[in-house]
Amino acid sequence: MVRQRGKVVEAMKPETYLSRVSKTISKFKLVEEGDVIFVALSGGGDSASALFTLKSFVDQKDVDCELKGFHIDLGFPSGKTLDVVKGQTDLVGVELVTVSTKELGVSFPDVVKKTSRPVCSVCGVLKRYVMNKIPREMGANKIATGHHMDDFLVFFFKNVISQNFFWISKFKPKLESSHPKMLCRIRPLFFVGGKETRDFCESMGIPFVERESCPHTSLDCYTDLNRAKWYETLYQIEKKHKNFRCQMARSIVKMNKFFAVEASRVVECPLCGEPTNQETCSFCRLFKGVK
Amino acid sequence: MVRQRGKVVEAMKPETYLSRVSKTISKFKLVEEGDVIFVALSGGGDSASALFTLKSFVDQKDVDCELKGFHIDLGFPSGKTLDVVKGQTDLVGVELVTVSTKELGVSFPDVVKKTSRPVCSVCGVLKRYVMNKIPREMGANKIATGHHMDDFLVFFFKNVISQNFFWISKFKPKLESSHPKMLCRIRPLFFVGGKETRDFCESMGIPFVERESCPHTSLDCYTDLNRAKWYETLYQIEKKHKNFRCQMARSIVKMNKFFAVEASRVVECPLCGEPTNQETCSFCRLFKGVK
Repeated sequence: MVRQRGKVVEAMKPETYLSRVSKTISKFKLVEEGDVIFVALSGGGDSASALFTLKSFVDQKDVDCELKGFHIDLGFPSGKTLDVVKGQTDLVGVELVTVSTKELGVSFPDVVKKTSRPVCSVCGVLKRYVMNKIPREMGANKIATGHHMDDFLVFFFKNVISQNFFWISKFKPKLESSHPKMLCRIRPLFFVGGKETRDFCESMGIPFVERESCPHTSLDCYTDLNRAKWYETLYQIEKKHKNFRCQMARSIVKMNKFFAVEASRVVECPLCGEPTNQETCSFCRLFKGVK
Repeated sequence: MVRQRGKVVEAMKPETYLSRVSKTISKFKLVEEGDVIFVALSGGGDSASALFTLKSFVDQKDVDCELKGFHIDLGFPSGKTLDVVKGQTDLVGVELVTVSTKELGVSFPDVVKKTSRPVCSVCGVLKRYVMNKIPREMGANKIATGHHMDDFLVFFFKNVISQNFFWISKFKPKLESSHPKMLCRIRPLFFVGGKETRDFCESMGIPFVERESCPHTSLDCYTDLNRAKWYETLYQIEKKHKNFRCQMARSIVKMNKFFAVEASRVVECPLCGEPTNQETCSFCRLFKGVK
Protein backbone atom coordinates (compact mmCIF):
# COMPACT_ATOMS: atom_id res chain seq x y z
CA MET A 1 0.00 0.00 0.00
CA VAL A 2 1.30 3.46 -0.89
CA ARG A 3 -0.01 6.59 0.82
CA GLN A 4 -0.58 9.54 -1.52
CA ARG A 5 -1.76 12.87 -0.11
CA GLY A 6 -3.43 11.13 2.80
CA LYS A 7 -5.35 8.72 0.57
CA VAL A 8 -4.57 5.04 0.31
CA VAL A 9 -3.81 3.91 -3.24
CA GLU A 10 -3.34 0.21 -3.89
CA ALA A 11 0.08 -0.61 -5.32
CA MET A 12 0.06 -3.50 -7.80
CA LYS A 13 2.33 -6.45 -7.06
CA PRO A 14 4.68 -7.42 -9.92
CA GLU A 15 3.07 -10.88 -10.17
CA THR A 16 -0.41 -9.31 -10.45
CA TYR A 17 0.89 -6.96 -13.14
CA LEU A 18 2.48 -9.81 -15.08
CA SER A 19 -0.63 -11.95 -14.75
CA ARG A 20 -2.92 -9.15 -15.96
CA VAL A 21 -0.72 -8.49 -19.00
CA SER A 22 -0.52 -12.24 -19.74
CA LYS A 23 -4.31 -12.45 -19.68
CA THR A 24 -4.51 -9.57 -22.17
CA ILE A 25 -1.98 -11.25 -24.48
CA SER A 26 -3.84 -14.54 -24.25
CA LYS A 27 -7.45 -13.28 -24.47
CA PHE A 28 -6.85 -10.97 -27.44
CA LYS A 29 -4.46 -13.38 -29.22
CA LEU A 30 -1.69 -10.79 -29.31
CA VAL A 31 0.92 -13.53 -29.77
CA GLU A 32 0.34 -16.47 -32.14
CA GLU A 33 2.46 -19.33 -33.46
CA GLY A 34 4.72 -18.23 -36.32
CA ASP A 35 4.56 -14.52 -35.44
CA VAL A 36 7.52 -12.23 -36.04
CA ILE A 37 6.95 -9.38 -33.59
CA PHE A 38 9.05 -6.24 -33.41
CA VAL A 39 8.70 -4.39 -30.11
CA ALA A 40 9.11 -0.63 -30.56
CA LEU A 41 11.51 0.52 -27.83
CA SER A 42 11.85 4.24 -27.10
CA GLY A 43 14.14 3.77 -24.12
CA GLY A 44 11.28 4.51 -21.70
CA GLY A 45 9.75 2.13 -19.19
CA ASP A 46 6.46 1.51 -21.00
CA SER A 47 7.90 -0.06 -24.13
CA ALA A 48 10.54 -1.87 -22.06
CA SER A 49 7.77 -3.42 -20.00
CA ALA A 50 5.90 -4.41 -23.18
CA LEU A 51 9.03 -6.29 -24.33
CA PHE A 52 9.62 -7.86 -20.92
CA THR A 53 6.04 -9.10 -20.50
CA LEU A 54 5.78 -10.38 -24.09
CA LYS A 55 9.05 -12.30 -23.69
CA SER A 56 7.88 -13.70 -20.38
CA PHE A 57 4.60 -14.87 -22.00
CA VAL A 58 6.37 -16.45 -25.00
CA ASP A 59 8.80 -18.31 -22.71
CA GLN A 60 6.15 -19.45 -20.28
CA LYS A 61 3.72 -20.68 -22.95
CA ASP A 62 6.55 -21.87 -25.21
CA VAL A 63 5.06 -20.12 -28.26
CA ASP A 64 6.99 -20.72 -31.48
CA CYS A 65 7.50 -17.11 -32.57
CA GLU A 66 10.21 -14.49 -32.94
CA LEU A 67 10.53 -11.35 -30.77
CA LYS A 68 12.89 -8.49 -31.57
CA GLY A 69 13.54 -5.10 -30.04
CA PHE A 70 13.26 -2.20 -32.49
CA HIS A 71 14.65 1.25 -31.80
CA ILE A 72 14.49 4.38 -33.92
CA ASP A 73 17.44 6.67 -33.28
CA LEU A 74 15.95 10.14 -33.70
CA GLY A 75 19.39 11.74 -33.39
CA PHE A 76 18.82 13.41 -30.03
CA PRO A 77 21.99 14.82 -28.46
CA SER A 78 21.96 12.57 -25.37
CA GLY A 79 23.61 9.32 -26.44
CA LYS A 80 22.39 7.45 -23.34
CA THR A 81 19.13 6.13 -24.81
CA LEU A 82 20.72 3.59 -27.15
CA ASP A 83 22.70 2.05 -24.26
CA VAL A 84 19.56 1.76 -22.16
CA VAL A 85 17.63 0.12 -25.00
CA LYS A 86 20.52 -2.30 -25.46
CA GLY A 87 20.27 -3.07 -21.75
CA GLN A 88 16.52 -3.73 -22.11
CA THR A 89 16.98 -6.28 -24.91
CA ASP A 90 20.01 -7.88 -23.23
CA LEU A 91 17.98 -8.35 -20.04
CA VAL A 92 15.48 -10.61 -21.83
CA GLY A 93 17.92 -11.99 -24.41
CA VAL A 94 16.42 -10.77 -27.67
CA GLU A 95 18.05 -9.18 -30.69
CA LEU A 96 17.95 -5.38 -31.04
CA VAL A 97 17.37 -3.79 -34.44
CA THR A 98 18.14 -0.09 -34.63
CA VAL A 99 17.54 2.32 -37.43
CA SER A 100 18.60 5.93 -37.43
CA THR A 101 16.62 8.66 -39.14
CA LYS A 102 19.90 9.78 -40.72
CA GLU A 103 20.20 6.42 -42.50
CA LEU A 104 16.69 6.99 -43.83
CA GLY A 105 17.76 10.36 -45.23
CA VAL A 106 15.43 12.24 -42.90
CA SER A 107 16.42 15.31 -40.92
CA PHE A 108 14.03 15.58 -38.01
CA PRO A 109 15.35 18.94 -36.71
CA ASP A 110 15.12 20.51 -40.19
CA VAL A 111 11.48 19.50 -40.61
CA VAL A 112 10.57 20.73 -37.13
CA LYS A 113 12.04 24.13 -38.00
CA LYS A 114 10.12 24.36 -41.29
CA THR A 115 6.64 23.18 -40.26
CA SER A 116 4.06 24.84 -38.05
CA ARG A 117 2.95 21.44 -36.68
CA PRO A 118 3.81 20.71 -33.04
CA VAL A 119 7.07 18.79 -32.61
CA CYS A 120 5.27 15.82 -30.96
CA SER A 121 3.02 15.51 -33.98
CA VAL A 122 5.99 15.50 -36.42
CA CYS A 123 7.75 12.91 -34.27
CA GLY A 124 4.58 10.79 -34.21
CA VAL A 125 4.27 10.81 -38.01
CA LEU A 126 7.93 9.81 -38.38
CA LYS A 127 7.80 7.04 -35.79
CA ARG A 128 4.53 5.51 -37.03
CA TYR A 129 5.90 5.48 -40.59
CA VAL A 130 9.27 3.92 -39.74
CA MET A 131 7.75 1.49 -37.20
CA ASN A 132 5.51 0.04 -39.89
CA LYS A 133 7.84 0.11 -42.92
CA ILE A 134 11.18 -1.18 -41.58
CA PRO A 135 9.93 -4.10 -39.45
CA ARG A 136 7.64 -5.21 -42.30
CA GLU A 137 10.56 -5.11 -44.76
CA MET A 138 12.52 -7.21 -42.26
CA GLY A 139 9.82 -9.89 -42.09
CA ALA A 140 7.66 -8.79 -39.15
CA ASN A 141 3.90 -9.36 -39.17
CA LYS A 142 3.21 -7.47 -35.92
CA ILE A 143 4.53 -4.41 -34.13
CA ALA A 144 4.11 -4.11 -30.35
CA THR A 145 4.05 -0.76 -28.55
CA GLY A 146 4.13 0.27 -24.90
CA HIS A 147 0.87 2.27 -24.96
CA HIS A 148 -0.90 1.56 -21.68
CA MET A 149 -4.36 1.99 -20.15
CA ASP A 150 -3.78 5.61 -19.07
CA ASP A 151 -2.62 6.56 -22.58
CA PHE A 152 -5.82 5.15 -24.09
CA LEU A 153 -8.02 6.81 -21.48
CA VAL A 154 -6.41 10.19 -22.11
CA PHE A 155 -6.77 9.63 -25.89
CA PHE A 156 -10.38 8.67 -25.24
CA PHE A 157 -11.25 11.83 -23.30
CA LYS A 158 -9.41 14.08 -25.72
CA ASN A 159 -11.06 12.45 -28.74
CA VAL A 160 -14.52 12.50 -27.18
CA ILE A 161 -14.17 16.18 -26.34
CA SER A 162 -12.90 17.08 -29.80
CA GLN A 163 -15.59 14.82 -31.34
CA ASN A 164 -13.08 12.66 -33.23
CA PHE A 165 -15.11 9.56 -32.56
CA PHE A 166 -13.58 7.51 -35.36
CA TRP A 167 -10.24 7.28 -33.53
CA ILE A 168 -11.93 5.55 -30.60
CA SER A 169 -12.50 2.57 -32.89
CA LYS A 170 -8.73 1.99 -32.82
CA PHE A 171 -8.51 1.79 -29.02
CA LYS A 172 -8.10 -1.93 -28.45
CA PRO A 173 -5.34 -4.35 -27.46
CA LYS A 174 -5.02 -5.67 -31.02
CA LEU A 175 -5.47 -3.48 -34.08
CA GLU A 176 -5.68 -5.81 -37.07
CA SER A 177 -3.99 -4.86 -40.32
CA SER A 178 -6.26 -2.94 -42.69
CA HIS A 179 -3.92 -3.23 -45.71
CA PRO A 180 -1.36 -5.84 -46.87
CA LYS A 181 1.44 -3.36 -46.13
CA MET A 182 0.09 -2.38 -42.69
CA LEU A 183 1.38 -4.37 -39.72
CA CYS A 184 -0.99 -5.63 -37.05
CA ARG A 185 -0.44 -3.47 -33.94
CA ILE A 186 -0.51 -5.03 -30.48
CA ARG A 187 -0.69 -3.29 -27.07
CA PRO A 188 -0.02 -5.78 -24.27
CA LEU A 189 -0.26 -3.04 -21.59
CA PHE A 190 -3.87 -2.11 -22.48
CA PHE A 191 -5.18 -3.04 -19.01
CA VAL A 192 -2.32 -1.71 -16.84
CA GLY A 193 -1.59 1.97 -16.23
CA GLY A 194 1.46 4.20 -16.21
CA LYS A 195 2.00 4.10 -12.46
CA GLU A 196 1.77 0.29 -12.34
CA THR A 197 4.18 0.03 -15.27
CA ARG A 198 6.74 2.26 -13.62
CA ASP A 199 6.46 0.29 -10.38
CA PHE A 200 6.84 -2.95 -12.34
CA CYS A 201 10.01 -1.76 -14.10
CA GLU A 202 11.50 -0.72 -10.77
CA SER A 203 10.58 -4.02 -9.10
CA MET A 204 12.03 -6.10 -11.94
CA GLY A 205 15.16 -3.98 -12.39
CA ILE A 206 14.27 -3.07 -15.98
CA PRO A 207 16.44 -0.12 -17.06
CA PHE A 208 14.70 2.88 -18.61
CA VAL A 209 15.27 6.55 -19.40
CA GLU A 210 12.94 9.31 -18.23
CA ARG A 211 10.54 10.76 -20.78
CA GLU A 212 12.21 14.14 -20.23
CA SER A 213 15.23 12.90 -22.18
CA CYS A 214 13.46 14.20 -25.30
CA PRO A 215 15.08 17.61 -25.81
CA HIS A 216 12.15 18.97 -27.82
CA THR A 217 9.36 18.73 -25.30
CA SER A 218 8.87 20.11 -21.85
CA LEU A 219 5.94 21.05 -19.71
CA ASP A 220 6.14 24.57 -21.14
CA CYS A 221 4.51 23.16 -24.24
CA TYR A 222 0.71 23.57 -24.13
CA THR A 223 -0.02 20.17 -25.69
CA ASP A 224 2.16 18.43 -23.12
CA LEU A 225 0.82 20.43 -20.20
CA ASN A 226 -2.74 19.59 -21.18
CA ARG A 227 -1.90 15.91 -21.59
CA ALA A 228 -0.10 15.83 -18.23
CA LYS A 229 -3.17 17.38 -16.60
CA TRP A 230 -5.34 14.62 -18.05
CA TYR A 231 -3.09 11.91 -16.60
CA GLU A 232 -3.38 13.56 -13.18
CA THR A 233 -7.14 13.78 -13.60
CA LEU A 234 -7.40 10.02 -14.21
CA TYR A 235 -5.72 9.26 -10.91
CA GLN A 236 -7.85 11.86 -9.16
CA ILE A 237 -11.00 10.14 -10.45
CA GLU A 238 -9.64 6.73 -9.48
CA LYS A 239 -9.14 7.91 -5.90
CA LYS A 240 -12.89 8.56 -5.66
CA HIS A 241 -14.05 5.71 -7.91
CA LYS A 242 -12.04 2.58 -7.25
CA ASN A 243 -11.03 0.68 -10.38
CA PHE A 244 -12.30 3.49 -12.63
CA ARG A 245 -9.42 3.27 -15.11
CA CYS A 246 -9.68 -0.47 -15.59
CA GLN A 247 -13.49 -0.37 -15.91
CA MET A 248 -13.20 2.42 -18.48
CA ALA A 249 -10.54 0.51 -20.45
CA ARG A 250 -12.84 -2.55 -20.56
CA SER A 251 -15.75 -0.37 -21.67
CA ILE A 252 -13.69 1.28 -24.40
CA VAL A 253 -12.83 -2.15 -25.84
CA LYS A 254 -16.55 -2.98 -26.00
CA MET A 255 -17.47 0.49 -27.24
CA ASN A 256 -15.04 0.85 -30.11
CA LYS A 257 -17.11 -1.28 -32.50
CA PHE A 258 -19.81 1.42 -32.50
CA PHE A 259 -17.37 3.94 -33.93
CA ALA A 260 -15.84 1.74 -36.63
CA VAL A 261 -18.54 2.68 -39.15
CA GLU A 262 -16.66 5.74 -40.36
CA ALA A 263 -13.55 3.76 -41.39
CA SER A 264 -11.83 5.23 -44.41
CA ARG A 265 -10.22 3.25 -47.24
CA VAL A 266 -6.48 2.57 -46.94
CA VAL A 267 -4.52 2.99 -50.19
CA GLU A 268 -0.85 3.17 -51.19
CA CYS A 269 0.85 6.57 -51.19
CA PRO A 270 1.73 7.41 -54.84
CA LEU A 271 5.15 8.75 -53.74
CA CYS A 272 6.50 6.09 -51.37
CA GLY A 273 4.08 3.17 -51.76
CA GLU A 274 3.37 3.00 -48.01
CA PRO A 275 -0.23 2.61 -46.78
CA THR A 276 -2.22 5.77 -46.07
CA ASN A 277 -5.84 6.89 -45.78
CA GLN A 278 -5.04 10.20 -47.46
CA GLU A 279 -4.05 11.06 -51.02
CA THR A 280 -0.37 11.47 -50.10
CA CYS A 281 0.85 9.97 -46.81
CA SER A 282 1.63 12.24 -43.84
CA PHE A 283 5.29 11.24 -43.94
CA CYS A 284 5.79 12.36 -47.55
CA ARG A 285 3.85 15.57 -46.96
CA LEU A 286 6.05 16.45 -44.00
CA PHE A 287 9.44 14.99 -44.82
CA LYS A 288 9.43 15.30 -48.60
CA GLY A 289 7.91 18.76 -48.48
CA VAL A 290 4.81 17.78 -50.51
CA LYS A 291 1.89 20.13 -49.83
CA MET B 1 -16.61 35.12 -9.61
CA VAL B 2 -16.87 32.62 -6.75
CA ARG B 3 -13.80 31.30 -4.96
CA GLN B 4 -13.88 27.59 -4.16
CA ARG B 5 -10.99 26.00 -2.24
CA GLY B 6 -8.58 28.60 -3.57
CA LYS B 7 -9.58 28.04 -7.20
CA VAL B 8 -11.57 30.54 -9.19
CA VAL B 9 -14.78 29.08 -10.61
CA GLU B 10 -16.76 31.23 -13.01
CA ALA B 11 -20.29 31.89 -11.80
CA MET B 12 -22.83 32.11 -14.62
CA LYS B 13 -24.88 35.29 -14.86
CA PRO B 14 -28.68 34.77 -14.97
CA GLU B 15 -28.86 36.35 -18.44
CA THR B 16 -26.14 34.00 -19.74
CA TYR B 17 -28.01 31.05 -18.24
CA LEU B 18 -31.29 32.12 -19.80
CA SER B 19 -29.64 32.75 -23.15
CA ARG B 20 -27.94 29.35 -23.18
CA VAL B 21 -31.20 27.56 -22.35
CA SER B 22 -33.05 29.60 -25.00
CA LYS B 23 -30.48 28.56 -27.60
CA THR B 24 -31.01 24.91 -26.65
CA ILE B 25 -34.80 25.27 -26.93
CA SER B 26 -34.46 26.99 -30.28
CA LYS B 27 -31.70 24.84 -31.85
CA PHE B 28 -33.28 21.50 -30.95
CA LYS B 29 -36.87 22.66 -31.62
CA LEU B 30 -37.98 21.80 -28.10
CA VAL B 31 -40.97 24.14 -28.40
CA GLU B 32 -43.07 24.27 -31.59
CA GLU B 33 -46.32 25.95 -32.60
CA GLY B 34 -49.36 24.03 -31.36
CA ASP B 35 -47.47 22.12 -28.66
CA VAL B 36 -49.14 21.15 -25.40
CA ILE B 37 -46.21 20.76 -23.00
CA PHE B 38 -46.50 19.48 -19.45
CA VAL B 39 -43.50 20.38 -17.30
CA ALA B 40 -42.85 17.74 -14.64
CA LEU B 41 -42.35 19.60 -11.35
CA SER B 42 -40.89 17.75 -8.37
CA GLY B 43 -40.68 20.82 -6.17
CA GLY B 44 -36.91 21.04 -6.69
CA GLY B 45 -35.01 23.82 -8.42
CA ASP B 46 -34.12 21.93 -11.61
CA SER B 47 -37.66 21.32 -12.82
CA ALA B 48 -38.73 24.77 -11.60
CA SER B 49 -35.99 26.29 -13.74
CA ALA B 50 -37.11 24.18 -16.73
CA LEU B 51 -40.62 25.66 -16.36
CA PHE B 52 -39.32 29.19 -15.85
CA THR B 53 -37.01 29.14 -18.88
CA LEU B 54 -39.59 27.47 -21.15
CA LYS B 55 -42.20 30.07 -20.18
CA SER B 56 -39.71 32.86 -20.74
CA PHE B 57 -38.90 31.46 -24.23
CA VAL B 58 -42.57 31.06 -25.18
CA ASP B 59 -43.37 34.61 -24.05
CA GLN B 60 -40.35 36.16 -25.71
CA LYS B 61 -40.83 34.38 -29.05
CA ASP B 62 -44.62 34.55 -28.79
CA VAL B 63 -45.00 30.85 -29.63
CA ASP B 64 -48.60 29.68 -29.89
CA CYS B 65 -48.48 26.72 -27.50
CA GLU B 66 -49.71 25.62 -24.10
CA LEU B 67 -47.50 25.13 -21.03
CA LYS B 68 -48.69 23.45 -17.83
CA GLY B 69 -47.03 22.46 -14.59
CA PHE B 70 -47.46 18.79 -13.66
CA HIS B 71 -46.83 17.45 -10.19
CA ILE B 72 -47.07 13.89 -8.92
CA ASP B 73 -47.93 13.76 -5.23
CA LEU B 74 -46.03 10.72 -4.00
CA GLY B 75 -47.66 10.99 -0.59
CA PHE B 76 -44.54 11.98 1.35
CA PRO B 77 -45.25 13.14 4.91
CA SER B 78 -43.98 16.71 4.42
CA GLY B 79 -46.86 18.66 2.92
CA LYS B 80 -44.62 21.59 1.96
CA THR B 81 -43.78 20.41 -1.55
CA LEU B 82 -47.23 21.02 -3.05
CA ASP B 83 -47.21 24.63 -1.80
CA VAL B 84 -43.79 25.23 -3.31
CA VAL B 85 -44.85 23.76 -6.66
CA LYS B 86 -47.93 25.99 -6.58
CA GLY B 87 -45.59 28.93 -5.98
CA GLN B 88 -43.47 27.90 -8.99
CA THR B 89 -46.45 27.83 -11.38
CA ASP B 90 -47.97 31.01 -9.90
CA LEU B 91 -44.66 32.83 -10.44
CA VAL B 92 -44.85 32.30 -14.21
CA GLY B 93 -48.66 32.25 -14.44
CA VAL B 94 -49.33 28.74 -15.73
CA GLU B 95 -51.89 26.18 -14.63
CA LEU B 96 -50.79 23.40 -12.26
CA VAL B 97 -52.07 19.86 -12.74
CA THR B 98 -51.50 17.53 -9.80
CA VAL B 99 -52.12 13.85 -9.54
CA SER B 100 -51.65 11.83 -6.40
CA THR B 101 -50.50 8.23 -6.45
CA LYS B 102 -53.40 7.47 -4.10
CA GLU B 103 -55.88 8.57 -6.81
CA LEU B 104 -54.12 6.16 -9.15
CA GLY B 105 -54.66 3.34 -6.64
CA VAL B 106 -50.93 2.92 -6.09
CA SER B 107 -49.33 2.56 -2.69
CA PHE B 108 -45.71 3.58 -3.07
CA PRO B 109 -44.66 2.69 0.52
CA ASP B 110 -46.22 -0.79 0.22
CA VAL B 111 -44.33 -1.58 -2.98
CA VAL B 112 -41.05 -0.31 -1.53
CA LYS B 113 -41.50 -2.68 1.42
CA LYS B 114 -42.22 -5.68 -0.81
CA THR B 115 -39.56 -5.32 -3.52
CA SER B 116 -35.81 -5.75 -3.32
CA ARG B 117 -35.29 -2.95 -5.87
CA PRO B 118 -33.76 0.29 -4.54
CA VAL B 119 -36.36 2.88 -3.57
CA CYS B 120 -35.04 5.39 -6.18
CA SER B 121 -35.55 2.81 -8.88
CA VAL B 122 -39.18 2.12 -7.80
CA CYS B 123 -39.85 5.86 -7.67
CA GLY B 124 -38.32 6.26 -11.15
CA VAL B 125 -40.58 3.58 -12.65
CA LEU B 126 -43.65 5.17 -11.06
CA LYS B 127 -42.80 8.71 -12.12
CA ARG B 128 -41.87 7.82 -15.72
CA TYR B 129 -45.12 5.87 -16.08
CA VAL B 130 -47.40 8.56 -14.64
CA MET B 131 -45.51 11.39 -16.39
CA ASN B 132 -46.20 9.79 -19.76
CA LYS B 133 -49.74 8.45 -19.23
CA ILE B 134 -51.59 11.29 -17.47
CA PRO B 135 -50.31 14.26 -19.52
CA ARG B 136 -50.95 12.30 -22.74
CA GLU B 137 -54.51 11.53 -21.63
CA MET B 138 -54.92 15.24 -20.90
CA GLY B 139 -53.86 16.25 -24.41
CA ALA B 140 -50.10 16.83 -24.06
CA ASN B 141 -47.73 15.97 -26.90
CA LYS B 142 -44.53 16.71 -24.96
CA ILE B 143 -43.27 16.32 -21.41
CA ALA B 144 -40.43 18.55 -20.17
CA THR B 145 -38.12 17.54 -17.33
CA GLY B 146 -35.47 19.35 -15.32
CA HIS B 147 -32.61 16.94 -16.11
CA HIS B 148 -29.51 19.05 -16.61
CA MET B 149 -26.00 18.68 -18.04
CA ASP B 150 -24.51 17.20 -14.86
CA ASP B 151 -27.28 14.59 -14.68
CA PHE B 152 -26.52 13.47 -18.24
CA LEU B 153 -22.77 13.41 -17.64
CA VAL B 154 -23.18 11.28 -14.53
CA PHE B 155 -25.58 8.97 -16.46
CA PHE B 156 -22.99 8.87 -19.24
CA PHE B 157 -20.10 7.81 -16.99
CA LYS B 158 -22.20 5.29 -15.12
CA ASN B 159 -23.57 3.79 -18.33
CA VAL B 160 -20.17 3.68 -20.02
CA ILE B 161 -18.66 1.93 -17.01
CA SER B 162 -21.48 -0.58 -16.79
CA GLN B 163 -21.39 -1.01 -20.60
CA ASN B 164 -25.04 -0.03 -21.08
CA PHE B 165 -24.22 1.80 -24.28
CA PHE B 166 -27.75 1.76 -25.63
CA TRP B 167 -28.92 4.22 -22.97
CA ILE B 168 -26.42 6.80 -24.21
CA SER B 169 -28.50 7.05 -27.40
CA LYS B 170 -31.23 8.69 -25.30
CA PHE B 171 -28.97 11.46 -23.97
CA LYS B 172 -30.10 14.44 -26.01
CA PRO B 173 -32.15 17.61 -25.51
CA LYS B 174 -35.12 16.17 -27.41
CA LEU B 175 -36.07 12.52 -27.29
CA GLU B 176 -38.63 11.95 -30.02
CA SER B 177 -41.58 9.67 -29.40
CA SER B 178 -40.93 6.06 -30.42
CA HIS B 179 -44.59 4.97 -30.12
CA PRO B 180 -47.96 6.73 -30.61
CA LYS B 181 -48.57 6.49 -26.86
CA MET B 182 -45.10 7.74 -25.89
CA LEU B 183 -44.71 11.48 -25.37
CA CYS B 184 -41.77 13.36 -26.84
CA ARG B 185 -39.43 14.22 -23.94
CA ILE B 186 -37.65 17.57 -23.84
CA ARG B 187 -34.75 18.68 -21.61
CA PRO B 188 -34.21 22.44 -21.89
CA LEU B 189 -31.40 22.36 -19.27
CA PHE B 190 -29.19 19.97 -21.30
CA PHE B 191 -26.35 22.51 -21.57
CA VAL B 192 -26.46 24.03 -18.07
CA GLY B 193 -25.36 22.26 -14.90
CA GLY B 194 -26.71 21.78 -11.40
CA LYS B 195 -24.68 24.56 -9.83
CA GLU B 196 -25.70 27.08 -12.50
CA THR B 197 -29.34 26.05 -12.12
CA ARG B 198 -29.29 26.52 -8.37
CA ASP B 199 -27.65 29.94 -8.76
CA PHE B 200 -30.25 30.88 -11.38
CA CYS B 201 -33.16 29.92 -9.11
CA GLU B 202 -31.68 31.96 -6.30
CA SER B 203 -31.06 34.98 -8.55
CA MET B 204 -34.58 34.89 -9.98
CA GLY B 205 -36.31 34.21 -6.68
CA ILE B 206 -37.73 30.89 -7.88
CA PRO B 207 -38.96 28.92 -4.84
CA PHE B 208 -37.78 25.31 -4.50
CA VAL B 209 -37.49 22.54 -1.92
CA GLU B 210 -34.21 20.77 -1.16
CA ARG B 211 -33.74 17.31 -2.63
CA GLU B 212 -33.43 16.00 0.93
CA SER B 213 -37.17 16.48 1.37
CA CYS B 214 -37.56 12.93 0.01
CA PRO B 215 -37.88 10.86 3.20
CA HIS B 216 -36.71 7.66 1.52
CA THR B 217 -33.24 8.61 0.40
CA SER B 218 -30.23 9.90 2.20
CA LEU B 219 -26.52 9.78 1.65
CA ASP B 220 -26.44 6.56 3.69
CA CYS B 221 -27.80 4.84 0.60
CA TYR B 222 -24.99 3.40 -1.55
CA THR B 223 -26.62 4.35 -4.87
CA ASP B 224 -27.01 7.93 -3.74
CA LEU B 225 -23.54 8.15 -2.26
CA ASN B 226 -22.02 6.88 -5.48
CA ARG B 227 -24.07 9.31 -7.55
CA ALA B 228 -23.14 12.23 -5.27
CA LYS B 229 -19.47 11.29 -5.66
CA TRP B 230 -19.83 11.44 -9.45
CA TYR B 231 -21.33 14.94 -9.30
CA GLU B 232 -18.36 16.07 -7.18
CA THR B 233 -15.98 14.42 -9.64
CA LEU B 234 -17.43 16.39 -12.55
CA TYR B 235 -16.69 19.69 -10.83
CA GLN B 236 -13.23 18.45 -9.85
CA ILE B 237 -12.47 17.68 -13.52
CA GLU B 238 -13.89 21.03 -14.60
CA LYS B 239 -11.51 22.83 -12.24
CA LYS B 240 -8.58 21.34 -14.16
CA HIS B 241 -10.18 21.33 -17.62
CA LYS B 242 -12.15 24.51 -18.19
CA ASN B 243 -15.50 23.99 -19.90
CA PHE B 244 -15.18 20.19 -19.61
CA ARG B 245 -18.84 19.60 -18.75
CA CYS B 246 -20.19 21.66 -21.60
CA GLN B 247 -17.76 20.14 -24.12
CA MET B 248 -18.71 16.65 -22.95
CA ALA B 249 -22.44 17.45 -23.19
CA ARG B 250 -21.93 18.65 -26.79
CA SER B 251 -19.95 15.51 -27.60
CA ILE B 252 -22.60 13.25 -26.10
CA VAL B 253 -25.23 14.82 -28.34
CA LYS B 254 -23.05 14.05 -31.38
CA MET B 255 -22.10 10.63 -30.06
CA ASN B 256 -25.51 9.24 -29.24
CA LYS B 257 -26.34 8.36 -32.86
CA PHE B 258 -23.60 5.70 -32.80
CA PHE B 259 -25.39 3.86 -30.01
CA ALA B 260 -28.90 3.99 -31.43
CA VAL B 261 -28.39 0.80 -33.43
CA GLU B 262 -29.43 -1.44 -30.56
CA ALA B 263 -32.89 0.17 -30.22
CA SER B 264 -35.53 -2.30 -29.15
CA ARG B 265 -39.11 -2.38 -30.40
CA VAL B 266 -41.70 -0.52 -28.31
CA VAL B 267 -45.01 -2.37 -27.86
CA GLU B 268 -48.12 -1.98 -25.69
CA CYS B 269 -48.16 -3.67 -22.29
CA PRO B 270 -50.85 -6.42 -22.40
CA LEU B 271 -52.05 -5.44 -18.90
CA CYS B 272 -52.30 -1.65 -19.00
CA GLY B 273 -51.86 -0.77 -22.67
CA GLU B 274 -49.02 1.65 -21.95
CA PRO B 275 -45.88 1.58 -24.14
CA THR B 276 -43.00 -0.67 -23.06
CA ASN B 277 -39.96 -2.38 -24.56
CA GLN B 278 -40.51 -5.44 -22.38
CA GLU B 279 -43.20 -8.11 -22.38
CA THR B 280 -45.01 -6.56 -19.39
CA CYS B 281 -44.20 -2.95 -18.47
CA SER B 282 -42.06 -2.17 -15.41
CA PHE B 283 -44.97 -0.41 -13.74
CA CYS B 284 -47.27 -3.43 -13.90
CA ARG B 285 -44.51 -5.77 -12.79
CA LEU B 286 -43.82 -3.62 -9.75
CA PHE B 287 -47.15 -2.12 -8.81
CA LYS B 288 -49.49 -4.88 -9.90
CA GLY B 289 -47.24 -7.56 -8.51
CA VAL B 290 -46.76 -9.32 -11.87
CA LYS B 291 -43.53 -11.36 -11.94
